[in-house]
Amino acid sequence: MNYGIVSKVLGNLLLFEAGILVFPLLISLYTKESDTLAFVYSIAIILFVGLMMSKVPRPSKKIKAKEALSIVAGGWLLVSFFGSLPFVLSGSIPSMVDAFFETVSGLTTTGATLINDIEALPKGILFWRSLTHWLGGMGILVLTLAILPAIGVGGFQIFKAESPGPVSDKLVPRMKDTAVILYTVYLGITVLQIILLYIGGMSLYESVIHTFGTVGTGGFSTRNDSIGAFGSNYIHFVIAIFMIASGVNFSLYYDLYKGRWKDVVKNSELKFYFSIIAGAVFLITINLYGNVYTSLFETFRNALFQVGAIITTTGYTTVDYEQWNVFSQLIIFLLMFVGGCAGSTGGSIKNIRLLVLVKMIKREISKILHPRAYVPIKLNGKSISQDVVSSVTGFFFLYILIFIVGTLLISLEGIGMVSAASSIAATLGNIGPGFEMVGPTQTYSDFSAWSKMLFSLMMLFGRLELFTIFILLMPSFWKK
Amino acid sequence: MNYGIVSKVLGNLLLFEAGILVFPLLISLYTKESDTLAFVYSIAIILFVGLMMSKVPRPSKKIKAKEALSIVAGGWLLVSFFGSLPFVLSGSIPSMVDAFFETVSGLTTTGATLINDIEALPKGILFWRSLTHWLGGMGILVLTLAILPAIGVGGFQIFKAESPGPVSDKLVPRMKDTAVILYTVYLGITVLQIILLYIGGMSLYESVIHTFGTVGTGGFSTRNDSIGAFGSNYIHFVIAIFMIASGVNFSLYYDLYKGRWKDVVKNSELKFYFSIIAGAVFLITINLYGNVYTSLFETFRNALFQVGAIITTTGYTTVDYEQWNVFSQLIIFLLMFVGGCAGSTGGSIKNIRLLVLVKMIKREISKILHPRAYVPIKLNGKSISQDVVSSVTGFFFLYILIFIVGTLLISLEGIGMVSAASSIAATLGNIGPGFEMVGPTQTYSDFSAWSKMLFSLMMLFGRLELFTIFILLMPSFWKK
Repeated sequence: MNYGIVSKVLGNLLLFEAGILVFPLLISLYTKESDTLAFVYSIAIILFVGLMMSKVPRPSKKIKAKEALSIVAGGWLLVSFFGSLPFVLSGSIPSMVDAFFETVSGLTTTGATLINDIEALPKGILFWRSLTHWLGGMGILVLTLAILPAIGVGGFQIFKAESPGPVSDKLVPRMKDTAVILYTVYLGITVLQIILLYIGGMSLYESVIHTFGTVGTGGFSTRNDSIGAFGSNYIHFVIAIFMIASGVNFSLYYDLYKGRWKDVVKNSELKFYFSIIAGAVFLITINLYGNVYTSLFETFRNALFQVGAIITTTGYTTVDYEQWNVFSQLIIFLLMFVGGCAGSTGGSIKNIRLLVLVKMIKREISKILHPRAYVPIKLNGKSISQDVVSSVTGFFFLYILIFIVGTLLISLEGIGMVSAASSIAATLGNIGPGFEMVGPTQTYSDFSAWSKMLFSLMMLFGRLELFTIFILLMPSFWKK
Repeated sequence: MNYGIVSKVLGNLLLFEAGILVFPLLISLYTKESDTLAFVYSIAIILFVGLMMSKVPRPSKKIKAKEALSIVAGGWLLVSFFGSLPFVLSGSIPSMVDAFFETVSGLTTTGATLINDIEALPKGILFWRSLTHWLGGMGILVLTLAILPAIGVGGFQIFKAESPGPVSDKLVPRMKDTAVILYTVYLGITVLQIILLYIGGMSLYESVIHTFGTVGTGGFSTRNDSIGAFGSNYIHFVIAIFMIASGVNFSLYYDLYKGRWKDVVKNSELKFYFSIIAGAVFLITINLYGNVYTSLFETFRNALFQVGAIITTTGYTTVDYEQWNVFSQLIIFLLMFVGGCAGSTGGSIKNIRLLVLVKMIKREISKILHPRAYVPIKLNGKSISQDVVSSVTGFFFLYILIFIVGTLLISLEGIGMVSAASSIAATLGNIGPGFEMVGPTQTYSDFSAWSKMLFSLMMLFGRLELFTIFILLMPSFWKK
């Protein structure tokens, strides 16, 4: 392992974080609340550590798989750890474990919170809290585009197979261009949503916060009642539509911009994603109309919002969906395992993987009647390799396995089955709210410190697509 | 489709059923209870229909995939339908839907019951109820050995890859020998258990009934409290050990008999199966000792019994495991998705499939560090083909998919999430008891007729390894 280069890169990452912290500092200077000094101290500490780390001598510039994995995992841990300083130093979240949980939740765009009264916190702190979503959403794009291809992780192979757009086979030479394009899209969507929310009567500050929560598919709000605190239909629909839009592969927006309509319309994953959303909204609307809600419009609006919020792993709420019929609740629970499209900011298993699995089932069924027929699995009209299929199934099984082990561990708290399973599904899938103890009207504050660390690990597992963390835990990784 | 041969085979199957019904008739003649006429009428009706069907002219003797699938699925439906006649005609289960559910539950070796007071029923009826377990367990062996290989269903390919014993590559010429060997093993285990239970102080009648429930991994009892009604440690251990033994691939017993110890000891699936049992018993014992139970022996005995009962999909109970800690309850819930070994009477997903999935995860992890290395998946030291791997993953996904759709459908009853999920898991996996509404102290009697039909379908899905039923539901099967 080339520790020099790892330290150097991580040091630079911390310097970047210190720079970013200037924005919430400015907010706190403007609002003149109690959090100003917390930001000043945090920036000073992070600058110091970052400078020290970036000064470590490095024998070579070579980054191989081991270094890349260490940088990714170490980077998320360090940025989360130091990013929690403002919460602790300002007294907003006094416990270090709690503050770490909240920061990991922000950066991984989970949006699970343990703050029971959000509205009591200073504006600068809440801004930093939501800014982590936006950075995390951006970080995923970096990860997908800049680091994973170099080490050949399965998730990327799918992305490559999927994207006829900016991501070509000759990816490395165009890496920088690709990143610039995607960041432009990300920034464009962000600005557009801020304007639309502001027009709808939200304050500029809250428009920015909720846009961060939406485009990063995070879910942190300034309100204890989340989006339910805003009575306007317009705001509900704007956020619902932007959540769903943020779950789409960002490279498709570039295709749209370049006029490649056909590629977008024919995109297999996009069709699958929209079909699931339409199906879920339809079933929930039918199930709730006439009993839970009397107005068809209200039923549809709430169904669309919650389906969009959960499938994209954002986790905003307008209603307490635990008051819904069990059928609709189960659909919400299942959507926790779907997630966004590859190359979006949404987490969980992701549509393209589920699409491959569905196609595998179809192939096995047709094999019974035609055992000798060779049926390749196709995406966007092109066959995908057996390697990609294996990596998809491997990912799915590992996801289920981690979900099971996590649920067993958290059940030792003595909580019910549904609380245990849904809290792990909600953190591993980077969603936020679940059911019962972690339902939409609850927070994660009642769990033990030990459980909060487990949740933090789950959020990192989910965000780094499982294998990155998993491989670091294996002894063979550290040999020689 | 060659309807003639299908009708002929199904007719013969009914004649066989009529013959079998003579045994419970003899019991009822001996006990002089009210069920004698019910058996006489049932036998007469079944004989008549069977004779009619076997007289249908058949143009050729050819059995291809379509005919084989129709015979299997049609056979299970017909035998279940006519097998429910004694329950209806004797008034023990007056509703036809209920009686069909109970018979399907028996034949599929599920053991889910909707009889609230079992002890009130005539002995002949209870004998027939439990005999269906034994026949169903036998039927699975027929299915695995005689019909599936001819049509190349994935489940069998695994079985073939797995068994170095009586099942060779040249399977068809030796099919009859293989079947004879396996039935001898089945009969031997049955006789041995009856003797051991009888020695332990159980009446001969109850020894036979509980042996049927054990070796068929069914779970029907003569007592409302299941095995918990018997206070003897000896009986608990005998049944626990025979349940676990009935979850082992039966061909391994033949290997043992032939002195091929090495093949048995090195069998990958067997090691995996015993590891899961040992792990689950260990974790539950640790979790419950000192809080739910004060005696270590009692903790271990109950843990071993319930782990054995659920993993083998038998479903007998000695305790109400819903009184256990949630951690232990979750382990029980997870075991519902494991099942027995291939070539046993146990249902659910089966150990060999899970073992292949675990090996797939390992391979994907090692691929990250060594992307170019080709790592085949091995069972018993031999590589298995990509076709087998695909059929295993396809089966797993279809299983999960049917579980999800079933859970959604049953949730329309307005029951809780845990009741919905566990009742489907317990029927699809051919287990019997689940949690909450279908917990160990409950029955399936409170569900609507519609739900009971759904449960019956789930039991058949599980027993026929999904694809057989699934493919009959596809329009393309019926074309030309």
